[in-house]
Amino acid sequence: MQITGFDTHDVRFPTSRTLDGSDAMNPDPDYAMAYLTVLTDAPEEATGNGFVFTIGRGNDVQLSAIRALEPFLVGLEVEELLDDMGALSRRLVGESQFRWLGPEKGVMHMAIGAVVNALWDLKAKLAGLPLWRLLAQMSPEEIVALVDFRYLSDALTSDEALEILKAGASGREVRADVLVMDGFPAYTTSAGWLGYSDERLELLCSEAVNDGFTQVKLKVGGQLEDDRRRCRIARSAIGDGVGLAVDANQVWDVGTAIEWVKKLTEFDLAWVEEPTSPDDILGTAAIRAAVQPVPIATGEHVANRVVFKQLLQAKAIDVMQIDACRVAGVNENIANILLAAKFGVPVCPHTGGVGLCELAQHLAMFDYVAVSGSLAGRRIEWIDHLHEHFVEPAAVDRGRYRAPSGAGASVELHASSIAEYSFPYGPVWRGAEG
Amino acid sequence: MQITGFDTHDVRFPTSRTLDGSDAMNPDPDYAMAYLTVLTDAPEEATGNGFVFTIGRGNDVQLSAIRALEPFLVGLEVEELLDDMGALSRRLVGESQFRWLGPEKGVMHMAIGAVVNALWDLKAKLAGLPLWRLLAQMSPEEIVALVDFRYLSDALTSDEALEILKAGASGREVRADVLVMDGFPAYTTSAGWLGYSDERLELLCSEAVNDGFTQVKLKVGGQLEDDRRRCRIARSAIGDGVGLAVDANQVWDVGTAIEWVKKLTEFDLAWVEEPTSPDDILGTAAIRAAVQPVPIATGEHVANRVVFKQLLQAKAIDVMQIDACRVAGVNENIANILLAAKFGVPVCPHTGGVGLCELAQHLAMFDYVAVSGSLAGRRIEWIDHLHEHFVEPAAVDRGRYRAPSGAGASVELHASSIAEYSFPYGPVWRGAEG
Repeated sequence: MQITGFDTHDVRFPTSRTLDGSDAMNPDPDYAMAYLTVLTDAPEEATGNGFVFTIGRGNDVQLSAIRALEPFLVGLEVEELLDDMGALSRRLVGESQFRWLGPEKGVMHMAIGAVVNALWDLKAKLAGLPLWRLLAQMSPEEIVALVDFRYLSDALTSDEALEILKAGASGREVRADVLVMDGFPAYTTSAGWLGYSDERLELLCSEAVNDGFTQVKLKVGGQLEDDRRRCRIARSAIGDGVGLAVDANQVWDVGTAIEWVKKLTEFDLAWVEEPTSPDDILGTAAIRAAVQPVPIATGEHVANRVVFKQLLQAKAIDVMQIDACRVAGVNENIANILLAAKFGVPVCPHTGGVGLCELAQHLAMFDYVAVSGSLAGRRIEWIDHLHEHFVEPAAVDRGRYRAPSGAGASVELHASSIAEYSFPYGPVWRGAEG
Repeated sequence: MQITGFDTHDVRFPTSRTLDGSDAMNPDPDYAMAYLTVLTDAPEEATGNGFVFTIGRGNDVQLSAIRALEPFLVGLEVEELLDDMGALSRRLVGESQFRWLGPEKGVMHMAIGAVVNALWDLKAKLAGLPLWRLLAQMSPEEIVALVDFRYLSDALTSDEALEILKAGASGREVRADVLVMDGFPAYTTSAGWLGYSDERLELLCSEAVNDGFTQVKLKVGGQLEDDRRRCRIARSAIGDGVGLAVDANQVWDVGTAIEWVKKLTEFDLAWVEEPTSPDDILGTAAIRAAVQPVPIATGEHVANRVVFKQLLQAKAIDVMQIDACRVAGVNENIANILLAAKFGVPVCPHTGGVGLCELAQHLAMFDYVAVSGSLAGRRIEWIDHLHEHFVEPAAVDRGRYRAPSGAGASVELHASSIAEYSFPYGPVWRGAEG
C-alpha cells in the first residue's frame, strides 16, 4: 500500500453568529478545520484523517501549509512509514527549509501536526484499534522511539522516559478496562463564554452540575467587576463541591494578572488559565508565585515541547494543557506527556474548538493507561457543540468521556458536513454572503 | 491616495548549488523572498516593498499568508494609515482570527512583518528619506506610540521607553552626520560557511582582514574536531586583533553546548551564536552561565518581543540579534531595540540571507542615532552575495556599512531579478527542472 496524495478541505462553522466560543481575546471566532485526508492506493482498506483547528480567517493559509507537505509523503510505502512514526516525525520537523518558517512553531509546525496525526489515524484504523488503545499497547521502548528528545535532554533523557514508561506499564490492562467501564473525567466550558448573559450563565452552570460535571470553566479578562459578578453567579449555581476554573485567554500583562487574580481568589478557583502570553515562561512563573496557592494552567497555545519544558523547569504551571493540533502531532504530545510525568504535573488537554474533543481524548487516555496511571487532577475539557459533524463523535455521560471504541483517532467528518460547511462555497457560507 | 492591492512574487535564488549559506542546521538552503509590493492609486508617487526571507521550500506558504492580509488594507487612505503606524501594527498583530495561527510567531507573524515593513518603505519614500533617518527624526513620543507594550510592562513600561528615547535624542544630528561620514561597523560571515573547504576558509579569512573587517564568523556544530581545526585556521589567518565569532545554528542540546563551547574557548571567541533552540530561554541562560566569559548571542529565530524580553530578564544573552523579517516589522523591532537598551545589551542584527542586509541596516542605524547613541560592541552582519538584485544595494567599504541615502527601506528588487528568479517558472528554475 502506498500513499497517493492528500485531499484537503477548508471547513468553517459560523460560530460567531451565536457568540459560541467568545472570550476576551477572541470575540467572534468561526470555528474551523484545515482538514486533511491522506489517501492510499487501497482506499477500501483505510484513509487517514487529520486537521488543524483554527478560528476562521487564515484557515486557507493553514491548508496551504498542509498541502506543501504532500510531496514528502506521496509514493511512500504505508507499512514502512507507519512502522517508524518516530522517523517520520523527525523527518518532517527537521526538514531544514520548512523549519526556517518556525522553527517548530506556528502554521508550518501545526501543518506537520495534522499530517502526523492523519498517519496515526491511518495506523490505528489498519490496526483496528482506537488510537488511545494502540498507543497504550506499545512497549515502553516503542514509545520512547517516537519522541524527539532534541532540546529536552537537560530536563528529560530517553533513559528517564523509559523508566517512566516502564513504571506506567504495570497495570495497563486493568486501567484500560476501568476506562472502558467508567470513562475519563470531563469539565465543561460550554457555560461560560464571555458573550453569554448572566441568566444564561446561571442556567448553564446549574445544568452542568445536574449533568454530572464536577468542574466548570468561565472566560474572564474583560472587566474585573464583570468577572467577579460572573464568578459569584457561577459559584452560587454550582455550590462549593464543584470546581470553578477561569480562563483569561492571554489578555493580561504580568502585573495586571497578579492584581486581577488576587481579586478572584475568594471564589476558590480550580485554576487560572492562560493568564498572559503563552510565550512568557518567566512571566507565568512570576504570576504563579505571586498568587499562590491559586493553580495556574496553560498550554493550548504553547508552540512546542521546548516551551513546555521550561514552563515545568520554572515551576510556572500546576496543570499542563496540551492541544492536539498546536504541536507536531501525537509524537510531540507524547514528549509533552512524558515531561509532565517527570515533573509531576497533571495533563488536562485543551479542547475548546471543533474536533479537539475527539482527538485529545485519545491522548489523555493514553496518558492515564500507560504513563501517569492516575486520574487525580486530570480532566478533559468538554464543549458540547459541533460533535454531530463527526462519524464517531466524542461523547460525555454524567460528566465523563466515554472511551472511544472505533478504530482510529475519531476525527473523520461526515461528507455531508464537509460539503455544507466548505468555505467559501458551501451552502452555509454562500447564504452568508448572498 | 488609497491602497489598491498587493503584488506578490515567489523569488528564489539557487544558492544550494554552491553551498553558500550552508550551516549545521541548514545544509542546502535556496535563499528566497516572499516578496510584496503594496500598490496605491498613485503608482507614480510611490509603492511600498516588503518581504519575508525564507530558505526555499515553503516560500509559497509564506506568500499565501501575506496575501491573506490584503483585504485588511485595500481601500484605506494612505496618509491616515501612515500617520499612525502604531495603530496599524496593533490592528494586524491583534486580529483575533489570524492570531490563533501563532500567536505572534511563525508564518502569520512574519507575514504581518512584511506588510508593516512595506508600509514603512512607502512612508519613507513619500517622506523622501531613508528609513533610518525617518525613524531617527521622529520624536520620542512618536516612537513610543509605535510600540505595542502588551506583555512587556514587567520589564519595560512606555514611561521607561520614553526616558530612554529622550536620553537618546541628545546628539542625534551629530551622530547622523558621523554615520554618513564613517558608516556602521560590519562583520562578515561570507568566509565561514560549513560547506567550504579549509583552503577556501583560510583564503576568505585573510581577504576579510585585508578588506578591513574587524570580525569574522564561522559556522560550527558539525564535528567538534572540524570546528577546532577551522577555528585554528581562521584565528591564524585573521590574527589576534580581529574578532572571531562562531554560529551553531541551534544544533546543540544544553549539555552538549556547554561541553562543546568549552573546547573552543582557547580561540578567544567574540560570541557563540544560537547555541540551542531559540525558544530555550532557560537553556540559553544555563549555557551562558556555564561558559562565562564567552559571550552568547541569539535572535534571528526569536519569534517576538516576549521571548527577547525573557532572554534579557534571564541574563541569557550578551548580544541581541534582531532579524528584520522574523517579527512583526519595524514596530516590533523598535520594541526589541528599546528592551536591549533597557538591559544594556548591544543589538547586532542578523542578516544572513537575501535582502536582510538591506533592511536591517536601517534598524541598526536608527538604534545608534536615536536610542543607544553608541557603536560599542555593535556590528551588522555582512554577507557579500545577492546584493546585485537590489535597486539600492547595501554596501560595505573597509568593513563598514555605508549609510543608505536613497528614500525608503532599500528592499526594492530589480524587475529583471524578479522575472529571472521567480519560482518555479523563471528561467533559472525552468533550467533546473528541465
